[in-house]
Amino acid sequence: MNRLRHVLTQITIKHGWVFIYEKGYQSTDTAVSSVFTKMKGVGYTNVDGEERVWDMVDYVFPEQGDSSFVVMTNYIITKGQKMGKCPELTEPRYLCNSDSDCERGIIERTGHGHMTGKCVGNTTKTCEVVAWCPVEDDHTIPDPALLMSAENYTLFIKNSVTFPAYGVKRSNLVEGIDNQYIKSCVYDPTTSPLCPIFRLGDLVQLSGFNFATIAKVGGAIGIVIDWTCNLDYDQSECKPVYTFHGLYGNPNETDMARASVGYNFRYAKHYMEDKQEKRTLLKVFGIRFDIIVRSVARKFDIIPTLTAIGSGVGIFGVATVVCDLILLYLLPKREFYNNMKFKVTETVEQEPLDEFSSEKYVSKE
Amino acid sequence: MNRLRHVLTQITIKHGWVFIYEKGYQSTDTAVSSVFTKMKGVGYTNVDGEERVWDMVDYVFPEQGDSSFVVMTNYIITKGQKMGKCPELTEPRYLCNSDSDCERGIIERTGHGHMTGKCVGNTTKTCEVVAWCPVEDDHTIPDPALLMSAENYTLFIKNSVTFPAYGVKRSNLVEGIDNQYIKSCVYDPTTSPLCPIFRLGDLVQLSGFNFATIAKVGGAIGIVIDWTCNLDYDQSECKPVYTFHGLYGNPNETDMARASVGYNFRYAKHYMEDKQEKRTLLKVFGIRFDIIVRSVARKFDIIPTLTAIGSGVGIFGVATVVCDLILLYLLPKREFYNNMKFKVTETVEQEPLDEFSSEKYVSKE
Amino acid sequence: MNRLRHVLTQITIKHGWVFIYEKGYQSTDTAVSSVFTKMKGVGYTNVDGEERVWDMVDYVFPEQGDSSFVVMTNYIITKGQKMGKCPELTEPRYLCNSDSDCERGIIERTGHGHMTGKCVGNTTKTCEVVAWCPVEDDHTIPDPALLMSAENYTLFIKNSVTFPAYGVKRSNLVEGIDNQYIKSCVYDPTTSPLCPIFRLGDLVQLSGFNFATIAKVGGAIGIVIDWTCNLDYDQSECKPVYTFHGLYGNPNETDMARASVGYNFRYAKHYMEDKQEKRTLLKVFGIRFDIIVRSVARKFDIIPTLTAIGSGVGIFGVATVVCDLILLYLLPKREFYNNMKFKVTETVEQEPLDEFSSEKYVSKE
Repeated sequence: MNRLRHVLTQITIKHGWVFIYEKGYQSTDTAVSSVFTKMKGVGYTNVDGEERVWDMVDYVFPEQGDSSFVVMTNYIITKGQKMGKCPELTEPRYLCNSDSDCERGIIERTGHGHMTGKCVGNTTKTCEVVAWCPVEDDHTIPDPALLMSAENYTLFIKNSVTFPAYGVKRSNLVEGIDNQYIKSCVYDPTTSPLCPIFRLGDLVQLSGFNFATIAKVGGAIGIVIDWTCNLDYDQSECKPVYTFHGLYGNPNETDMARASVGYNFRYAKHYMEDKQEKRTLLKVFGIRFDIIVRSVARKFDIIPTLTAIGSGVGIFGVATVVCDLILLYLLPKREFYNNMKFKVTETVEQEPLDEFSSEKYVSKE
Repeated sequence: MNRLRHVLTQITIKHGWVFIYEKGYQSTDTAVSSVFTKMKGVGYTNVDGEERVWDMVDYVFPEQGDSSFVVMTNYIITKGQKMGKCPELTEPRYLCNSDSDCERGIIERTGHGHMTGKCVGNTTKTCEVVAWCPVEDDHTIPDPALLMSAENYTLFIKNSVTFPAYGVKRSNLVEGIDNQYIKSCVYDPTTSPLCPIFRLGDLVQLSGFNFATIAKVGGAIGIVIDWTCNLDYDQSECKPVYTFHGLYGNPNETDMARASVGYNFRYAKHYMEDKQEKRTLLKVFGIRFDIIVRSVARKFDIIPTLTAIGSGVGIFGVATVVCDLILLYLLPKREFYNNMKFKVTETVEQEPLDEFSSEKYVSKE
Repeated sequence: MNRLRHVLTQITIKHGWVFIYEKGYQSTDTAVSSVFTKMKGVGYTNVDGEERVWDMVDYVFPEQGDSSFVVMTNYIITKGQKMGKCPELTEPRYLCNSDSDCERGIIERTGHGHMTGKCVGNTTKTCEVVAWCPVEDDHTIPDPALLMSAENYTLFIKNSVTFPAYGVKRSNLVEGIDNQYIKSCVYDPTTSPLCPIFRLGDLVQLSGFNFATIAKVGGAIGIVIDWTCNLDYDQSECKPVYTFHGLYGNPNETDMARASVGYNFRYAKHYMEDKQEKRTLLKVFGIRFDIIVRSVARKFDIIPTLTAIGSGVGIFGVATVVCDLILLYLLPKREFYNNMKFKVTETVEQEPLDEFSSEKYVSKE
């Protein structure tokens, strides 16, 4: 029995710890949150002697400072596309010998256009398509990435959270993070954990990626802003914690991700030339950032306190039940304990049994 | 009493079932998630002899592979708009007889521009506005939809989830979903429930919509990716389940939705012509897809186990209380049970009562 | 003891209230939700005699009716930028005396381009950069905001929620909100709390902002659509409640927000002129709207009912434990109660003690 009592004492202590540690005496609320992002930094490319800079307007998609966005790090450009008829790429699946190989109108799911039914070309013949011509050839990904300079871009995150249940409003620009500090700081997990400005190269590293790889083929990084606030303390104790999660991107991570590596999408700039609509097509490889706010605020509240105590006392009940079970059914002298615990009452209407009357008499007295 | 015992046994069994079935012995975590989408397929239109193809760059908004996006299925095009002065549409609310009907500067909430105060036109006179001229006339929606070929587009979804509390990272490209499989598979709820490539026509059908209708006026579909994972088993058992929810779109669904049918927005391509800014305005009708990740991972944990047991034992308590209430207050012989249960102690300081001393003596012995 | 009993009765009542008020007898589900937004209204500017109107295509970012979007209220325009070499702004940090002050290739984090290493200019010399030239000068923010007319724009919100667990689908266009009503209504918290059309000026005011200020520098507003539905009642009782939260924007709110006021981003329209790529750069100041759906539906369910009762009964247990503790350890006559409560059983194997046998005899009889 002593051993059992010891175990039960431990359970009780554990439950008390749950009560304290898991904050069983507090109510909780999640936040209404808004995230605004802004990239800074200029990229520079010199392809075939053509100097070009890339500012945030050029390399951030979408432009309006969303919580989910892509930073371009590499690209394949196809200039001067216009609507017309042209041969498909010289890939096995588009090759043909005669018109009969190109059934008119059938659009291959992965093709670039609408087949005209003609087989064209001089040496290597391919099916002709109605498409944005010339069709894009994206077989060779520039390596190293054209915009390796992206490593030095910085990301500024502005995050505001409101806990409606407690009327509390916080910003990641907490006390002490003023204009002066922001101008010079760069986030570092140990020395500047509250600086809202992040170097892209650091973000990639903190997510466990290699910059050269992710810059070439693209990838995705999750930035989690964790607001776990105990509002029984002062509001100024309620501060964000940033963590970084590599979501996909490294071609060498695991088998399952191998099916589809990187992150890319296509984007076009349209223009008019000689009264004709043209476009510059970019296949963009980039790093997708998803900024995810996880928030929970806690404050003392009588209701959850009572509920927690209630279920805690239930635990005490376990002691009684377990003791009883052991005493009454398992111990060698169980019959003896049975007799000690239960009084058998035989309710005969005619005449009350003697022992009961006596017992009754004693109790009542 | 037997009947009561039976009921209580049932409650106990039920509670045990809750414990097992509702996983009362496990802690839970939700995922940090990232969704990337990519459309494939080419649309083809032939309007008034003008052949044109539409690739993903043309028909997906926004372009960067977001978890929420629109696929254009129909459109009304207004070419060559430029800033200037022109008459409003010949609709009843814009009609006028003289300049006095067009009060200068007042902008009708639903008008196309800023009224100049003039009433212009030859036969049917309307108020003149400063606007992108000519103003768009969107009264006739092309029927059938111009891009019915959208039915054969495919959507590829890449979804990565990370459960930070357990350090588990999963992708919807689970074990066995490799490059080879992806190249040929198409999602089917029964035969290929894990293929991450969806045919647009299938998505529309699985959501309960009719393609011809939704393509014409637009609509919205929710794709829910459900990650309910029991991490006490092997990670590879943690697989996504896709479900599809028609959100709005069918004009004939219910009364309340009738107020605003379809899904459309406007979009412009700007260009310069003869040193003047011009734009091509498109009123886009399309299918909006919202990909929603719902995740919960569970794993054995001592804390919730104890809490669940605690409240479970509370249920046992119900038995005691209910039995007592019936015995002591409802049964005809309740007085008798009252005496059996309670011992009345009268604590008089002066002299201890005899019966108590005797009882005391007996107990102590 | 009476006082104690009183306290415990109160606790019991409180627990019952929790059970009823906090809906302890119901299961819950959150919704799959989709939000579609549409702005209406036309802005008008007359800068240096150049009349211009701004329709939704011009002032909403992104264009596709997302749940998070920005409405432009002010802007700084830089026309005709093209890739080239030009001097930096005449700001202290870009000033130079000779080429040696401009180290070639080093890109200042906040600069506009890639330094060529030359120091150029006539009177005030600055470093030369490869950039979109001329570089943007955004020192003077137009005051008052150029698009003050944004105050009269209207926002239409279409929100559909589906509770998968209960198979219930609702829209914010609830019963009675038909086409006729929508054409004329404007949201008002007291008179039209269900009208899904919001005047921008009202939204700003309801969020606690001043329109002139927020229009000039930009800001962010959270619109929370709260679906708290008790599905034990009729579905038509399940209606949305709109609340508005100023997230950031007012320069005078609190110290911490002062670090970064307003909301702005940059946006470019590209075009070709004389075979050269050019762009019109806009620094856009605007109001960012985040529409957040918070949903919880409840319905009677046997499982949570039992759990709630279980932990409730636990509360009763407190009474027993507390009474016992007081009786046995605190009261002066505690030894007496100890004897009354416990029977000491000494289990000696050799010979049963007499008093136990007798007790046993009595009980068994």
